[in-house]
Amino acid sequence: MKILVTGFDPFGGETTNPAIESVKRIDENIEGVEVIKLEIPTVFHKSADVLEEKLKEVKPDVILCVGQAGGRYDLTVERVAINQDDARIEDNEGNQPIDVKIREDGKNAYFASIPIKAMVEEIKKENIPASISNSAGTFVCNHIMYQALYLAEKYGNIKAGFIHVPFLPNQVLDKPNTASMNLDDIVKGLNAAIRAIVNHDGDDLEVTGGQIA
Amino acid sequence: MKILVTGFDPFGGETTNPAIESVKRIDENIEGVEVIKLEIPTVFHKSADVLEEKLKEVKPDVILCVGQAGGRYDLTVERVAINQDDARIEDNEGNQPIDVKIREDGKNAYFASIPIKAMVEEIKKENIPASISNSAGTFVCNHIMYQALYLAEKYGNIKAGFIHVPFLPNQVLDKPNTASMNLDDIVKGLNAAIRAIVNHDGDDLEVTGGQIA
Amino acid sequence: MKILVTGFDPFGGETTNPAIESVKRIDENIEGVEVIKLEIPTVFHKSADVLEEKLKEVKPDVILCVGQAGGRYDLTVERVAINQDDARIEDNEGNQPIDVKIREDGKNAYFASIPIKAMVEEIKKENIPASISNSAGTFVCNHIMYQALYLAEKYGNIKAGFIHVPFLPNQVLDKPNTASMNLDDIVKGLNAAIRAIVNHDGDDLEVTGGQIA
Amino acid sequence: MKILVTGFDPFGGETTNPAIESVKRIDENIEGVEVIKLEIPTVFHKSADVLEEKLKEVKPDVILCVGQAGGRYDLTVERVAINQDDARIEDNEGNQPIDVKIREDGKNAYFASIPIKAMVEEIKKENIPASISNSAGTFVCNHIMYQALYLAEKYGNIKAGFIHVPFLPNQVLDKPNTASMNLDDIVKGLNAAIRAIVNHDGDDLEVTGGQIA
Repeated sequence: MKILVTGFDPFGGETTNPAIESVKRIDENIEGVEVIKLEIPTVFHKSADVLEEKLKEVKPDVILCVGQAGGRYDLTVERVAINQDDARIEDNEGNQPIDVKIREDGKNAYFASIPIKAMVEEIKKENIPASISNSAGTFVCNHIMYQALYLAEKYGNIKAGFIHVPFLPNQVLDKPNTASMNLDDIVKGLNAAIRAIVNHDGDDLEVTGGQIA
Repeated sequence: MKILVTGFDPFGGETTNPAIESVKRIDENIEGVEVIKLEIPTVFHKSADVLEEKLKEVKPDVILCVGQAGGRYDLTVERVAINQDDARIEDNEGNQPIDVKIREDGKNAYFASIPIKAMVEEIKKENIPASISNSAGTFVCNHIMYQALYLAEKYGNIKAGFIHVPFLPNQVLDKPNTASMNLDDIVKGLNAAIRAIVNHDGDDLEVTGGQIA
Repeated sequence: MKILVTGFDPFGGETTNPAIESVKRIDENIEGVEVIKLEIPTVFHKSADVLEEKLKEVKPDVILCVGQAGGRYDLTVERVAINQDDARIEDNEGNQPIDVKIREDGKNAYFASIPIKAMVEEIKKENIPASISNSAGTFVCNHIMYQALYLAEKYGNIKAGFIHVPFLPNQVLDKPNTASMNLDDIVKGLNAAIRAIVNHDGDDLEVTGGQIA
Repeated sequence: MKILVTGFDPFGGETTNPAIESVKRIDENIEGVEVIKLEIPTVFHKSADVLEEKLKEVKPDVILCVGQAGGRYDLTVERVAINQDDARIEDNEGNQPIDVKIREDGKNAYFASIPIKAMVEEIKKENIPASISNSAGTFVCNHIMYQALYLAEKYGNIKAGFIHVPFLPNQVLDKPNTASMNLDDIVKGLNAAIRAIVNHDGDDLEVTGGQIA
């Protein structure tokens, strides 16, 4: 079993991105499973091209994408990705799609096919706050989650999902009343999330549309 | 042209629901279009049964559902409904579905087929705060929006969507730091939203998955 | 009995100030008591000079100052004013005092001498959200509350206090997730607050535990 | 030079208090200055009795009190303490004073006599979010800050102040949308705050009422 974990590079005026910083620091082997890491650009479609190239190369069983959700308080495991790009700001190459489908031949939405509730529980066992989120937005994070699930279906036998992580403390020094999370805590939470994915690998997740009780 | 507007009855320990209270007060005729009002129970599936009965009776061109989103700051026009019930609390008949599909034969999600961005703009022109939301949650509000769009597709030639309204001021007297909105302002906002639906009736909304720029 | 109610003019880039807008609309006679209204500039010290002039002219029994607290959710009756100006932004004449005493011969702080808890209760009876606040900040609002209480002591037999009001809805159209309050509701709340002041005029406030002088 | 640092025990249904947990872990010697630690009960007046006993014993030059402010996002250095107990919940011995003066012979308020702005800057240099707060509330935290400053004046030549710390991550696992801070980060911040106190010891803080730019 192999898990491919992606993290975005910095965007939106930030010089660091907790997504790629935390992905770099997670364990390379979790419960006997190989963890492969991939930095992807914060760019619509190009991020998916980079992902697809890597997919063909390493043939992972699971794709877990990680992105920053500035302002959120905890690690949020996303339930669903929707077929829609609607960007409030430009991505790292100046693209700003407004109300555009991601894939003309894709479904309206894909549910995460990783065990999102078991992941939340496992993260909380490590004393790291976590919860389910019902929206990954309409920027590059929702985009890559949608693409990952589209590609998972295209190549078959791949599970996929997405985790949003809060700002790091150093990113909120001049942002009053904005939550943040320590990098070590984010890493601990991601390791726990991956552990939950590995341990629930035999479960039939299809029945409940992507998550287990 | 006829518009059917639904509002939920009170739930979750509240004695009033700004949804049905505001729906009762909106205009009966907006830009020459007849507005038909329907109170629906805050109950999974039964709410949809009541809606479907009314649908068959009045044959509306548009279904606009209205629900309460306690804690939100403004009128939020929902972009998408997902095929998933996941209830944190019981509905008004004690049902608490966890991670269950709403319709086995339904799509993963349906995008609102009413002009959500034009609606936001028209509401704001009335000096009422409004924005797009990318999640209607996984309780009865998402449920009825999903069902409305499912039924719209089943019966054909119907457009549908959903607006979430904040708590009323009297609901937050003992809830510190919780936003609320005056009932007259909610009503003014809903009238404006319906006006936008009527005025954008000729637009081809399909192209962008349900919204216009 | 006469009550002098002050409201600030707009500041901080806003074109309107809910403080003076609401003060203009409150009743001129409340429970048989004359209400005198005064617009004051959002300027350190000059606001107090304007207040003192009016004080000498009308000889009120009570001074109630009203100011905007952008971001707050409800009407907040202030408990205390501190002897400190510390401005994050410039006032309307470009002054930006940093860590400066308001009055060299003043106390470190003055407690409101109006019945703050009775006021909160009376406002809530009108279904308008309200609460006690323990800080009026260190900008012009705290400044005028401090000055009013200093002057009340100087001239004797005057009670004084301060109420903060939220943004109006039209002020938050482009401020996501920011609370606001309808102008009519603010006015209704201020009328109720003044009613409480009048009705508790004879009370020994020590006994009722509502506040201390 | 000696610094006495106090931390409260758990209260309000919590089994842990980040205040005493972090105080236990700060350095015992900072910039050559001895740091003495003291756990105090979350009880009105008794906390001050314990503090006064220790004061007489160790004769510190500075008293720094630390308490939990659940819901806050960063380390907040308090500017002022007011002569008022007004408890929303009971303390750890069942006391719930409402609108009561802390010291009949005390001032209405005392300003912190430690360099609060230099402390904020030094904490932020460590990449830990921090800011000035203008209210320590009216519960036991404000109480002990007020008492520390009262006692500092009584015994002479002592400086005093207060820092509020957020919840720990394990305290918010079941509190949605509530900020928290990693314990190591809190400790790092407190060490930095004490460093700032030591390094600004020669400054004349009286002029600006307790803080420097």
